Amino acid sequence: MKRSKRIRAFLITLFLLASPGYPATHEARSAQPSAADPLPSWNEGAAKTTIIRFVQSVVDKKGPNYVSPESRIATFDNDGTLCVERPTYFQVEFTLNRIKVLAEKHPDWQGDKLIQAAIKQDLATLRGKYRVKGLGKLMALTHSGITTDEFELAVRNWIKTAKHPTTGRLYREMIFQPMLELIRYLQESHFNVYVVSVAGIDFMRVWAEEAYGIPRENILGSRTKLKYDKINGRPVLMKSSDIIFVNDGDGKPAAIHQMIGRKPLLSFGNSDGDIEMLEWCDANEHKSLAAYIHHTDAQREWAYDRGSRIGTLSKGLDEAREKGWLVVDMKKDWKIIFPFQKAKAAAGR
Amino acid sequence: MKRSKRIRAFLITLFLLASPGYPATHEARSAQPSAADPLPSWNEGAAKTTIIRFVQSVVDKKGPNYVSPESRIATFDNDGTLCVERPTYFQVEFTLNRIKVLAEKHPDWQGDKLIQAAIKQDLATLRGKYRVKGLGKLMALTHSGITTDEFELAVRNWIKTAKHPTTGRLYREMIFQPMLELIRYLQESHFNVYVVSVAGIDFMRVWAEEAYGIPRENILGSRTKLKYDKINGRPVLMKSSDIIFVNDGDGKPAAIHQMIGRKPLLSFGNSDGDIEMLEWCDANEHKSLAAYIHHTDAQREWAYDRGSRIGTLSKGLDEAREKGWLVVDMKKDWKIIFPFQKAKAAAGR
Repeated sequence: MKRSKRIRAFLITLFLLASPGYPATHEARSAQPSAADPLPSWNEGAAKTTIIRFVQSVVDKKGPNYVSPESRIATFDNDGTLCVERPTYFQVEFTLNRIKVLAEKHPDWQGDKLIQAAIKQDLATLRGKYRVKGLGKLMALTHSGITTDEFELAVRNWIKTAKHPTTGRLYREMIFQPMLELIRYLQESHFNVYVVSVAGIDFMRVWAEEAYGIPRENILGSRTKLKYDKINGRPVLMKSSDIIFVNDGDGKPAAIHQMIGRKPLLSFGNSDGDIEMLEWCDANEHKSLAAYIHHTDAQREWAYDRGSRIGTLSKGLDEAREKGWLVVDMKKDWKIIFPFQKAKAAAGR
Repeated sequence: MKRSKRIRAFLITLFLLASPGYPATHEARSAQPSAADPLPSWNEGAAKTTIIRFVQSVVDKKGPNYVSPESRIATFDNDGTLCVERPTYFQVEFTLNRIKVLAEKHPDWQGDKLIQAAIKQDLATLRGKYRVKGLGKLMALTHSGITTDEFELAVRNWIKTAKHPTTGRLYREMIFQPMLELIRYLQESHFNVYVVSVAGIDFMRVWAEEAYGIPRENILGSRTKLKYDKINGRPVLMKSSDIIFVNDGDGKPAAIHQMIGRKPLLSFGNSDGDIEMLEWCDANEHKSLAAYIHHTDAQREWAYDRGSRIGTLSKGLDEAREKGWLVVDMKKDWKIIFPFQKAKAAAGR
């Protein structure tokens, strides 16, 4: 390579690094969208085109829909939007696993039928007999009376080894490759990407950072009261079971307002619990993109919407049609679902 | 300039822009520290040296105290730390002013003695007779039953014209020039700078963005419940007077944990309400810098600490001595106090 060419290549590299708003402190992770196609796991079609055209219009300084980087806020629901939510939410699986771990030190738990059902991961009994109250008790046993540091370590360890009960895959593999590519595409287009989840913030923060490469300060979740205390003179925050904020439904725009202070420019959900967040996005003064992930693929993932107990999507589906929001059809719009299918897809080309 | 020199200059410019973690989306504001001296309004001495050496050690990749940019969290209290808090907090002044504005549409308020004291800005009566309960009533009248957008506009308008009762200066001029320089120095050293204030988040967000150039998503404050509603089909968040979180004392580390998820690496406060935040900073796994601003300058600002009603600094002063935290002596350590003294100081050199 000639000297002038080398300088030119160097300049281009630097110029890419120097783009304003590039989230340089957070390494780009595995999704690696190519420059040519930022969404390689999406099939060609209306959904992919809508997303790419929208992002292009936002970053086009000369276009009518240009938005400056500080207002490029993207908010994603987690369960069912970025990862599988069947047979149940990951945090519930974590809870059952943690009950099992803690039970070793609690011989007094042996006669407790709720705890025994949890240890057996007997979701049918837990749902049918113990319901939300039972889950509340299990959450209290596993999520409180522990410092935030200890809890973080427990979540981190769980993520390393825990496997999905149906597929036997690691949980961290049960995430949606097309959404990973979208997150990376947005980050590279200088969007500030957030997760806005009903899950507890201390759980979600560890999960979202590891699974999606979204920094921990960009995680919004449900919150319980924390007690400031000292152990051997060292300050700690003790987790309690006293819920002070539920980050679902109309809680989502409230949390987005109080934690971010700007309306989303792009927002993805997958259930009726995301309606208000999508409406809040839709109310952005700039042209915005609100979207649902529709679980339509019984073969490769799960198919459910109106009648489902988990991830009910009914009112949202109607409203999306009425307002012209994007509805992503997993079966039709996604070439592959999970990251581990990438190699296969590439080989099959 | 020769071509090779031009290329070199261009490369250097790009290289500076490309430094990891540079908060490129947020313009640097007025403080303009020179490359030679990032803190020109600080007198030479132990405080200035401690701060500069600390920041240099954090960014020194080869040194033992290097911290990667994503963990460079700086948290600042607001009232008394970044701006004047006498005769009372800015948000209280805003409240009294807003009562006056609203009174024009409320002839029914004419017989209300609390409201009349507020309109007269009669702090003695308000404090002596009506106390916290009276302030609570005034806050409810001015801070609730209004959408977050309307409230933001009211704060923005107030900031534009409101004047400090003692000095007659605009409130936005009653901020500490040495702290502005410190904020800018930290931002340029790739710290993520936050305000952590007992003031309401919707007030503080507008204030801190305008006064200090700290982006709105980096503001932590007290929170009241928000009600998601629709006006003519358009979604809004209505402010209520139902306080759900008080961001003071042991609330500060809790909020820092739940909103940022990392311990501060540097933290400045000025009162006993900041003790827990500074302890939380002190507990950082990296070498950290916890500091108090000590109001010692009766001539140029105010002098108060242990006996004061506003900004009491007593237990904190003892703890700072015990733990070796930095205590900034305003009289001794600051060359000038306010931005409008800059020109004078330069002329007097």
